[in-house]
Amino acid sequence: MSHVLLIQCQDRVGLIHSITGVLFSHGANIVSNDEFVDPHSARFFMRTEFTGEIAAGELTGDLRSALPETAQVRLADSSAKAIVIFAGKEPHCLGDLLMRQAIGELNVAIQAVISNHGTLQPLVEKFEIPYFHLPCKKDDRFDHEQRILAVLRRFTPEFIVLAKYMRVLTPSFVAEYPQRIINVHHSFLPAFIGAQPYRQAYDRGVKIIGATSHFVTEQLDDGPIITQSILPVTHAHTAQSMAQEGREIEKIVLARALQLVTNNRVFISGNKTIIFE
Amino acid sequence: MSHVLLIQCQDRVGLIHSITGVLFSHGANIVSNDEFVDPHSARFFMRTEFTGEIAAGELTGDLRSALPETAQVRLADSSAKAIVIFAGKEPHCLGDLLMRQAIGELNVAIQAVISNHGTLQPLVEKFEIPYFHLPCKKDDRFDHEQRILAVLRRFTPEFIVLAKYMRVLTPSFVAEYPQRIINVHHSFLPAFIGAQPYRQAYDRGVKIIGATSHFVTEQLDDGPIITQSILPVTHAHTAQSMAQEGREIEKIVLARALQLVTNNRVFISGNKTIIFE
Amino acid sequence: MSHVLLIQCQDRVGLIHSITGVLFSHGANIVSNDEFVDPHSARFFMRTEFTGEIAAGELTGDLRSALPETAQVRLADSSAKAIVIFAGKEPHCLGDLLMRQAIGELNVAIQAVISNHGTLQPLVEKFEIPYFHLPCKKDDRFDHEQRILAVLRRFTPEFIVLAKYMRVLTPSFVAEYPQRIINVHHSFLPAFIGAQPYRQAYDRGVKIIGATSHFVTEQLDDGPIITQSILPVTHAHTAQSMAQEGREIEKIVLARALQLVTNNRVFISGNKTIIFE
Amino acid sequence: MSHVLLIQCQDRVGLIHSITGVLFSHGANIVSNDEFVDPHSARFFMRTEFTGEIAAGELTGDLRSALPETAQVRLADSSAKAIVIFAGKEPHCLGDLLMRQAIGELNVAIQAVISNHGTLQPLVEKFEIPYFHLPCKKDDRFDHEQRILAVLRRFTPEFIVLAKYMRVLTPSFVAEYPQRIINVHHSFLPAFIGAQPYRQAYDRGVKIIGATSHFVTEQLDDGPIITQSILPVTHAHTAQSMAQEGREIEKIVLARALQLVTNNRVFISGNKTIIFE
Repeated sequence: MSHVLLIQCQDRVGLIHSITGVLFSHGANIVSNDEFVDPHSARFFMRTEFTGEIAAGELTGDLRSALPETAQVRLADSSAKAIVIFAGKEPHCLGDLLMRQAIGELNVAIQAVISNHGTLQPLVEKFEIPYFHLPCKKDDRFDHEQRILAVLRRFTPEFIVLAKYMRVLTPSFVAEYPQRIINVHHSFLPAFIGAQPYRQAYDRGVKIIGATSHFVTEQLDDGPIITQSILPVTHAHTAQSMAQEGREIEKIVLARALQLVTNNRVFISGNKTIIFE
Repeated sequence: MSHVLLIQCQDRVGLIHSITGVLFSHGANIVSNDEFVDPHSARFFMRTEFTGEIAAGELTGDLRSALPETAQVRLADSSAKAIVIFAGKEPHCLGDLLMRQAIGELNVAIQAVISNHGTLQPLVEKFEIPYFHLPCKKDDRFDHEQRILAVLRRFTPEFIVLAKYMRVLTPSFVAEYPQRIINVHHSFLPAFIGAQPYRQAYDRGVKIIGATSHFVTEQLDDGPIITQSILPVTHAHTAQSMAQEGREIEKIVLARALQLVTNNRVFISGNKTIIFE
Repeated sequence: MSHVLLIQCQDRVGLIHSITGVLFSHGANIVSNDEFVDPHSARFFMRTEFTGEIAAGELTGDLRSALPETAQVRLADSSAKAIVIFAGKEPHCLGDLLMRQAIGELNVAIQAVISNHGTLQPLVEKFEIPYFHLPCKKDDRFDHEQRILAVLRRFTPEFIVLAKYMRVLTPSFVAEYPQRIINVHHSFLPAFIGAQPYRQAYDRGVKIIGATSHFVTEQLDDGPIITQSILPVTHAHTAQSMAQEGREIEKIVLARALQLVTNNRVFISGNKTIIFE
Repeated sequence: MSHVLLIQCQDRVGLIHSITGVLFSHGANIVSNDEFVDPHSARFFMRTEFTGEIAAGELTGDLRSALPETAQVRLADSSAKAIVIFAGKEPHCLGDLLMRQAIGELNVAIQAVISNHGTLQPLVEKFEIPYFHLPCKKDDRFDHEQRILAVLRRFTPEFIVLAKYMRVLTPSFVAEYPQRIINVHHSFLPAFIGAQPYRQAYDRGVKIIGATSHFVTEQLDDGPIITQSILPVTHAHTAQSMAQEGREIEKIVLARALQLVTNNRVFISGNKTIIFE
């Protein structure tokens, strides 16, 4: 059986030797190993895949004993992660996630889709996934989020995925799911933050457009970036044709981010991600 | 003999028919043809390569008669364009242009290199190109640009190329060479305008970095973009290693922009470029 | 209303002028225009989008009169094209096409899916598209194709799309749908023709893998290429992980090819395509 | 001071722990660490960068004691590697290497350039590097290589770089420099082996062209691949324009390969490379 061990702590000489020693003593056979030391924070990150019959509690206990006191040690679960998707009116990111789950390409269980529009309900129901149409008005943000939270309480998702959900979440909502909300922004962040990034890109006359998946924090479009992708454009593109072609990379960066996160390949360190692919 | 015809004017029905009619009547044989109508400004742009012995003055005269009054008609010259390069201390963009000219990959004649540093003089002199070391102090921008202009007057370049020249040019200097100064900025504009873009990219935790070549206007890093390119980066990159790898795309976007411009493939329309590749 | 005009004929001086003259005389307003002259065959290809109320029969008649005798003139239909998809056991390409059609990203009507396996029937039926499970044995190629042809006769598709259909079609079958069968091959053709291209790529130790969409001809994996895409790989990839990641580009090149073909952007010239994007 | 340790041996449980234990006992501080186990050969590869004052002989001795008997242990030297470049008539790859060395971007010392043509002598002499023009005739392959070997004996290069050297080396010559000759082939290997790959690519109608750097073995264009890169092309490209644009990636893959090899980042395993970037 395959396991993933995730460790972060202050760096010091001999860490890898200590960690691999504990793994060795538990009969673990390392399949792959990635380490990174952030030179600025002197923080050490390690992801280790290993096989072997191990006693999880004892292994992590021994590791904690062998590491600096503030070390974070996590023996990750390779089971499918429960997620809830928030959607708007645009189907491409949601549709891509639905199809990927249906054909076994994602390590997730989509428990529900929540939207302030009814548009995508028929699409979601093809896949026998519950759809919650929670309409909102301009001024009812607080009330709307309460209704969303009520639905979420029924499903206790590990991650929330914003699949072109076009409403800004309040800081108090984000605080309920820290480092657990994944968004796709339709620009090459930090260029074109906020509304209508393709319009902004068109107006600036750029020759490449992008898409960015990132964790959501209190600050709009400013959370830790997970993946980015780009597409060349020319003078012949309109804002509308940029938006149309941009869908191709929006869905790719979102699906890719979800795969990385649910496969335990992403550490968050401050406002950045450390990704072991 | 091959010619390039560049036309821009207000769009109206029948323009291509009119233009190709004039070309046909002059015995021109069209080799390739590109048109674009900007849907917002309803402006028509056309680039035509043709062969044939034509009388340049009569052809352009006939074209002007056949087109709307404000049409701009240019029969472009395929000869090498005279340029002067401004450099700083970093050799990679300058070195790339020197080598490309030396081996016949650029349609330019580098007449001189001007720098506020002496660093790159030995490199330039390998290629028997005059190097003008014009030192500057913090507060002598006006005087410094006057000394530069004095050198430029000796060479009358068609284009000025800023090959990692790290000083900001004044609006009055830029006004002397409108649409004739080409810069490379070491970021994916409009992200990370101004100083230390790699530092900014590092701090933001982006997963892709970029470089942009553009025409210089009065507004810093805001002129019409010609080409952009990107490179993937990871958490393991420092600002310094981003800068090091970024050189690869900086030199490519600058050389590419220079090739496009000197091969008469670039129209400027407002703050954008129209590029027929 | 928008129209697309497709012309190919032997090149001669004045063709564009003649064609645009006919269009002008019919009140057509050219929106975009692409031409190409193959320097080897001296053959001229033109794709013109125009608006205006035109009499289709008269316009094409006038064009034929104005062009060399062997000219091919086609006024293309922008309506959705009927297709039938052939599938095997792998769901990713088929699933991608089903989803794209469901959300309106393809200009096609999927009339049926035919497969020698039953695996993908539940997926197809989510989208209320008929699924024909036509099992085959090793030696019944002729009989199997007869059963397929019987189904196809009911649907008269304009194009057949092989979405990872792993059987080789006989020349006589291909001859029934000349230039109308689109395949995806999971390599960067012409590298790794035939079976198990990822295994071949792994064995050769390549650093980039690819996928290719092409028209099917009698010669295996040798028809006119429509689109290609690539992915970087490293020593850490196995043939299996290459296959897994390769799915991402397989589905993209197939969907892209289908969009280009059904949007009347593809000419076939000998064993090559001319594509006006 | 920074060191690079390169180890390869049969895999067994506990290797990383053993190796890091030896490093720890010698006071080495690991900066970065990469491992790979080839699942087919069960061979273990490790590259470790570390700092610290170590006694090289004792460290490697202790490592050998701690590892399986057939282990290969190498403490790599970060000094500039001596190379000799073989060139033909095309200047772009050679010029790129000359410029990169001149501006400090390569960890090499170019000791000489050898060519069967005199074409590039003036370019090389700008950089004060000896140029050996060794002409050859059709039938004097053996004699020609003897003259080359005589020159090489004067310089004892660590690596030979074929910068578009268009002659095929004999197996006996290759055997003199096993795993030490780096070539660039102007195609996406294994497509278009042999002569005129751009002509082959044009004839096949591909939509992407490539370039490949690889170690030279007895078998033409069949050695371990180091890096590959690609460029999109269209129907409008001729074999000649493919060749022209292909130069951009040819020089990049060759320079990149040289950087990887001379920075001790490349293992050769059978006919493949393992590259720790």
